Amino acid sequence: MGKGLLIVLSGPSGVGKGTVCSALRICNPDIVYSVSATTRTPREGEQDGVNYFYKSQDQFRQMIEHDDLLEWAEYVGNYYGTPRSFVNETIHNGKDIILEIEVQGALQVKERFPQGVFIFLLPPSLEELKSRITNRGTESDETIRERMNVAVEELRLLEQYDYAVVNDEINSACGRIQAIITAEHSKRERMMPQVQKWIAEV
Amino acid sequence: MGKGLLIVLSGPSGVGKGTVCSALRICNPDIVYSVSATTRTPREGEQDGVNYFYKSQDQFRQMIEHDDLLEWAEYVGNYYGTPRSFVNETIHNGKDIILEIEVQGALQVKERFPQGVFIFLLPPSLEELKSRITNRGTESDETIRERMNVAVEELRLLEQYDYAVVNDEINSACGRIQAIITAEHSKRERMMPQVQKWIAEV
Repeated sequence: MGKGLLIVLSGPSGVGKGTVCSALRICNPDIVYSVSATTRTPREGEQDGVNYFYKSQDQFRQMIEHDDLLEWAEYVGNYYGTPRSFVNETIHNGKDIILEIEVQGALQVKERFPQGVFIFLLPPSLEELKSRITNRGTESDETIRERMNVAVEELRLLEQYDYAVVNDEINSACGRIQAIITAEHSKRERMMPQVQKWIAEV
Repeated sequence: MGKGLLIVLSGPSGVGKGTVCSALRICNPDIVYSVSATTRTPREGEQDGVNYFYKSQDQFRQMIEHDDLLEWAEYVGNYYGTPRSFVNETIHNGKDIILEIEVQGALQVKERFPQGVFIFLLPPSLEELKSRITNRGTESDETIRERMNVAVEELRLLEQYDYAVVNDEINSACGRIQAIITAEHSKRERMMPQVQKWIAEV
């Protein structure tokens, strides 16, 4: 039994990362979903270690200082981040772990965990991306232009990823992600130790 | 529609390359099978361009001289080889092509076509490999030793491949090869031109 893989699923805003990730959860129940650490207070029904790892501001800052997070960010006064230990424990137990995250966070992860498998989710077409950005409501031309500029900057980051999967249809996108996971498990490097053992035994 | 892929399926003698390849043919009817060139005379029912491309000795030697073959070898007075043109035409038409070949031939292909996807088929265990080699009949200890040495040399070549697939069960081996093909089609490099076009259009 080899080590598990860290699968990072990312892509531009509105591409459907969450939907694809939920579907993947159904078609691959063995995959573990990364649990984030946060300083925000738990909502009713949320459980520590299931929804989030709940931390105090001090604890979180210590995690940052000790490089215990693969990435982190601050939103409206609260910290959110990906604990390195949870990822490491999971893959050491031979299980794959998936992290769904926006593009900036994914690049932070790549710096700290380059051996991860980085998958970029793409919209089926530029028109689709445009319509998702423009048809949200009654945005001004200025707002639309700004959003398109952000989208373009996000698309440029594809260059830093290993794979690109078009989210044309949820099941086929899921199937392609599954295929990527299977293929990554079949990489030569992963089988080399076993084969070297055989060679030594002969 | 991007270019197709050249998939090279190889592995040690007796690992079951032919069986896996035939099964793949059934579960993936879109994949094209590489047709070899040969100087041997056609048998009854064989068709030029289907079973082999039939060539004279002179024609074959010219193909070698012009670097028209991705690999070639001589068996009992006849030449056999993989025409580069057939592979190129297929992948330019956007179709994947599979080449089932022993390990030495695969390494020749790798020199001439490094962009191929090189898959090494492995036996499920060393015991299985041993029994396939020793249980063939009434071979002498000397013959068995020689065969095991050959097998070890063949296994060492895994190092030069991209993927290793264990042939434990025909359908799961097939499924893993299919997953590798899907994953290779999802590599970032293949989607970059499309996304760069989008970026330029915005």
